[in-house]
Amino acid sequence: MSRGLAPLSRELVPLSRDLAPLFDPVSVAVVGASDDPAKYGHAIAAQALRAPHRRPIHLVNRRAGTVLGQSAAPSLSALGEPVGLVVVSVPAPVYEQTVDEALACGAKAIVAVTAGFAETGAEGLARQRAVAEKVRAAGAVLVGPNCLGIADNTTELYLASDAFDLGGVALLSQSGNLALELQLAFAPHGLGFSRFVSLGNQSDVTLVDLVRDCARHDATKAIAVYAEDFGDGRAFAQAAATAGKPVVLLSAGRGAAAARSAASHTGALTTSSDIVAAACRDAGVELVRTPREMTAVLAALAGGRRAHGRRVAVFTDGGGHGVIAADAAEAAGFAVPELGPGVQEKLAGQLWGPSALGNPVDLAGMGEQDPMSYAAVVRTLLDSDEVDAVLMTGYFGGYSADSGGLGGAAGTLGATELEAADSIARAVRASAKPVVAQSMYPDAPSCQNLQAAGIPVFAAIEDAARALAAVVVPENSEGGDGGGAAAMESLPDAAPPMTDTGYYATRVLLAEAGVRFPASAEISSEAEVREFARGASGPFVLKALHLLHKSDAGGVVLNLADEEALVAAHREMHARLSAPSYSVEQMADLAAGVELIVGVNRDPRFGPIAMVGLGGVFTEVLGDVAFALAPVSAARAEAMLRGLRCAALLNGVRGRPAVDVAAAAKAIEQITRVAAAQHDLAECEVNPLLALPSGALALDARAVPLVPPSHSDY
Amino acid sequence: MSRGLAPLSRELVPLSRDLAPLFDPVSVAVVGASDDPAKYGHAIAAQALRAPHRRPIHLVNRRAGTVLGQSAAPSLSALGEPVGLVVVSVPAPVYEQTVDEALACGAKAIVAVTAGFAETGAEGLARQRAVAEKVRAAGAVLVGPNCLGIADNTTELYLASDAFDLGGVALLSQSGNLALELQLAFAPHGLGFSRFVSLGNQSDVTLVDLVRDCARHDATKAIAVYAEDFGDGRAFAQAAATAGKPVVLLSAGRGAAAARSAASHTGALTTSSDIVAAACRDAGVELVRTPREMTAVLAALAGGRRAHGRRVAVFTDGGGHGVIAADAAEAAGFAVPELGPGVQEKLAGQLWGPSALGNPVDLAGMGEQDPMSYAAVVRTLLDSDEVDAVLMTGYFGGYSADSGGLGGAAGTLGATELEAADSIARAVRASAKPVVAQSMYPDAPSCQNLQAAGIPVFAAIEDAARALAAVVVPENSEGGDGGGAAAMESLPDAAPPMTDTGYYATRVLLAEAGVRFPASAEISSEAEVREFARGASGPFVLKALHLLHKSDAGGVVLNLADEEALVAAHREMHARLSAPSYSVEQMADLAAGVELIVGVNRDPRFGPIAMVGLGGVFTEVLGDVAFALAPVSAARAEAMLRGLRCAALLNGVRGRPAVDVAAAAKAIEQITRVAAAQHDLAECEVNPLLALPSGALALDARAVPLVPPSHSDY
Repeated sequence: MSRGLAPLSRELVPLSRDLAPLFDPVSVAVVGASDDPAKYGHAIAAQALRAPHRRPIHLVNRRAGTVLGQSAAPSLSALGEPVGLVVVSVPAPVYEQTVDEALACGAKAIVAVTAGFAETGAEGLARQRAVAEKVRAAGAVLVGPNCLGIADNTTELYLASDAFDLGGVALLSQSGNLALELQLAFAPHGLGFSRFVSLGNQSDVTLVDLVRDCARHDATKAIAVYAEDFGDGRAFAQAAATAGKPVVLLSAGRGAAAARSAASHTGALTTSSDIVAAACRDAGVELVRTPREMTAVLAALAGGRRAHGRRVAVFTDGGGHGVIAADAAEAAGFAVPELGPGVQEKLAGQLWGPSALGNPVDLAGMGEQDPMSYAAVVRTLLDSDEVDAVLMTGYFGGYSADSGGLGGAAGTLGATELEAADSIARAVRASAKPVVAQSMYPDAPSCQNLQAAGIPVFAAIEDAARALAAVVVPENSEGGDGGGAAAMESLPDAAPPMTDTGYYATRVLLAEAGVRFPASAEISSEAEVREFARGASGPFVLKALHLLHKSDAGGVVLNLADEEALVAAHREMHARLSAPSYSVEQMADLAAGVELIVGVNRDPRFGPIAMVGLGGVFTEVLGDVAFALAPVSAARAEAMLRGLRCAALLNGVRGRPAVDVAAAAKAIEQITRVAAAQHDLAECEVNPLLALPSGALALDARAVPLVPPSHSDY
Repeated sequence: MSRGLAPLSRELVPLSRDLAPLFDPVSVAVVGASDDPAKYGHAIAAQALRAPHRRPIHLVNRRAGTVLGQSAAPSLSALGEPVGLVVVSVPAPVYEQTVDEALACGAKAIVAVTAGFAETGAEGLARQRAVAEKVRAAGAVLVGPNCLGIADNTTELYLASDAFDLGGVALLSQSGNLALELQLAFAPHGLGFSRFVSLGNQSDVTLVDLVRDCARHDATKAIAVYAEDFGDGRAFAQAAATAGKPVVLLSAGRGAAAARSAASHTGALTTSSDIVAAACRDAGVELVRTPREMTAVLAALAGGRRAHGRRVAVFTDGGGHGVIAADAAEAAGFAVPELGPGVQEKLAGQLWGPSALGNPVDLAGMGEQDPMSYAAVVRTLLDSDEVDAVLMTGYFGGYSADSGGLGGAAGTLGATELEAADSIARAVRASAKPVVAQSMYPDAPSCQNLQAAGIPVFAAIEDAARALAAVVVPENSEGGDGGGAAAMESLPDAAPPMTDTGYYATRVLLAEAGVRFPASAEISSEAEVREFARGASGPFVLKALHLLHKSDAGGVVLNLADEEALVAAHREMHARLSAPSYSVEQMADLAAGVELIVGVNRDPRFGPIAMVGLGGVFTEVLGDVAFALAPVSAARAEAMLRGLRCAALLNGVRGRPAVDVAAAAKAIEQITRVAAAQHDLAECEVNPLLALPSGALALDARAVPLVPPSHSDY
């Protein structure tokens, strides 16, 4: 169970906390400021002093004297005046005392660098919780402990160890070094930071609070998150879905080793990658796996244009690049369709004999003869309704004399590459479609001009293709320009807890929601068995009830042809198992349909998670399943089913009829809605859900109550 | 069919051509040398003149006068002396005439830049072929036409448009710009070129000739190939497998769009990506998809160390990097296993309290305190027999004062980062295991020192992980240090052509090779049906013979319980189909085993290709198949079966027994050996091959004769 932060109960924390005291404090005090460059308090103090005109910056060091050439107070109280924000960079033993003093001095925000809490075990967790409660009781907010500082470039608040370039990305990160790496990677793309927050142990201010605040922060154009622990993952997804701006998540800890490391690193509870991926898709969060991928995605999102389809036109001035780019685009999920005769004819008029017009479009040397041909081609491609986005690749950037490129030859028809870049920029500005470029010379002035016009330029084609994929509006999106692409279903209110989680109680709950089951009866005598059999037609199924694992114990018998076979089976089973009661059911024709599996598991971070898959051997051997935040709408359920690797089975193979996917999807909506409302359940499963040529039948049902967390864990 | 080069018949071309006249000619003449920078002859002439001391360089321009400050001859003949190598950069109409003149002047090598041949259609193809034949008849060699030149840095031969840095990579490429892009990407890794050859249309000298020659070329340490058309793909695979040095292939044209572009680009016939991937795996060729991936792989191979397993130790000085690196390593196919107590104890003695020791190993600030701790950790990890390779990630490079890094703080315990780098280098030199690094500051002097010691350093973690994957010795490898990792089966000599490719003839051929079939008989009368039934036991199968699609026409009936059912079915089928004869067979119990599919198709480039998969619904719905060059040894066949996504079915699921994979693998060896020897077959298939708990049975067999290529194509 959780060693790190527990989701806070909803009553205690207001939906949206005021973080103004954190990001724009009236004054700052750095406790633990030091002249020793090995101390973190040195770096933060040095940064804080970069904007002395903006607000008073006090340094506190228990030895007093001067620090960084400024006189330091021996304690916060010794300052003799209230402070707005206090950076706490002191040894762990004096953490509580320092926070108390800060609150006493009227601090409304605390940035706690001090480490040695949840990441070291239960005792540290208890300590950081006690401090967080005091802070909240005082009406203040606290980032950390075990954090590396914060910065807000829009309010000249510099409380991290390094300076960050100004830009539109708010970075919320559980790693400090990662911020430095992103800063290096951002620079060539003109990207910078509006804010940086090192999340630390999130004992008070959480990732969710910060996403909500950055959503309201005008200078923040995109929110970048590196998280090992999501805290209230469902609330994170909800905040991201409603942010109104792109949220990009670098999710770590997907593998076993990473999970081990993350646990030791910040006391985090890592979440299965399937669940994180499902939450991101449902919330419209762009999921990335490395700093480079995050950079590519943010560079593309900064361009502001969105593609409303996956048809990409690739063009280049040299065949090899076009071929490689087309493969990269297809690998990134794009189609590179052959252009129609109308577009090809138009291109033919703009290019020359050796050019290839089909897509990839290969200028075949025309770009070298006349760089303006690039602009003409971009214009034609953007104008075509056969094209959703354009991927430019290869030599552009190398034609201009000042590119420093190897083969830098100037165009021979007069126009320079820089003029061509300006013309391309005009064409792109006149269109709503995105253009992304790969260039051998991304630093060339002409490429920088492209970038300034919102055309991200990358050195590597796989980055360009990945970037382009990030600006495709998902098919079932509600539109808008980023963030919250999908319509997230909201979590239903809690239903009354189940007093009985047995088979029949679960069946009844699901049946009341509309899920269809075969005719059945709970019986406890042979007379009742006969009565059921006479009112129904075989074959029958007999199941022992109120046993833990009815299948394993031989408590399920299928294919009982008639009344006599059913009675005989009941006698035999009762002699063997003495179950308190049994279920007798009409047996569905399994061969007539496709077996599905539908389950909902409650994740400690993300709440109820639906799993939908093909049942039987396909689940066992292939793990052919899909995940989503529950509840799942019927439309979403149908998309999940259609997206399974073996989805073709649903259309009928080997002469079998197609099954009723709409009915199965509706049943999935009903099952996941019921399960999501039962906050008392750890699991709820229908396996199999039999999708038939007409309709869908639930052939079993199982509910597992949530075991409340032990006190040692929470 | 092929529009480009056809595989040359083996009799005409010696197995290994002497390319010394190409790479180290006695003299060079550039025909089409020009002062006009828009002409390709200008760039090549300028390059050629870089080494005038090495050999005579003649310039030829039909207008004579001076070119590049040197007097130019109006024609080759006008030179008045023999020439060793002639670069032909003239308009297409005078191609033949220029080559004739070159041969008349005694040229033993021709580099043909002139374009407008196979890439434009059948007429151009015929022209380039006629020229190539004349060249061969004269005992000379020709690269091109439609090539962009060649360079040999080891003989100061500069006949391309650009200069290439000296190094150990021979680049054989169908794209010129790609060479420039690789040159830019290589530089930070200290990589350079021994040779560059633009392949052009391969009308005479082919990729295969060049791979063979570079294999013998001492200064070439690795062979890098960008090919859209492999020519004789089988010979390419064979040459790569026996090169004795790494061969890295950037394979393009995997997608539909790329194939379209490649076809228009160099008149190439692109090969299915499945086949290329299979050939690469069988030949030990490292397959990459982008220039960046090629660079990463070559940088790692240049280090020279090989990993003999997939257990990687990840270490860093900051948690976030470790987590992301562990995920990247696992995504690249590595295990990141928790280190045992012995190793952890040793690490504990070298690190401090906050460090994580499990793997990823996180110095957690110790690296900043003392950069030498990096060296201690590397030493411990390399010494451990739990570790096959080490992946170092994060901040290293940023500690040194002169790194220019953002957070560049010097270590506080005295030793500098540069000293640490030297110590790491010593540890790596003392070990046979590879170390690969990712650094935020790859250009820092300490990282350059690592690189000099054979530790490739990358800015991006995915590149580092990919690089590391390239130095893992495959499990079934014969060892050696690169290239030819797998033992390629050689192509069997041609068997006598089949005079009958019907069902029974195919069965007999396979059965003679050892493949087991159920008892059966070819019959043409009811008496024969009864005779067979009495000598065997039911159920039976009846198949109509000598019909094109026996299943589709209702020509197969299964599950005939006994003699009477078989006779009745024969009567009904004969009345309906009047087939010339029928096959009666004992029916195997399909439910007792797992259906496999085994096929061999003859690819025009790579020859016989084996496909092995799970049959029935798994083939139809999932395409769960694997490819290899045929013939396939039983060991290789078993690995192919075990590597299928649904391989778990072979071990028995839902209470079924495991099947006899060894017997199935033996049958695959027999089938693929027979099919590979039948040069007259386009296809040979056994579907299903029933793998049983003991043994394997072929339940059907099909052979399709090769349709000889039409004269318009060949």
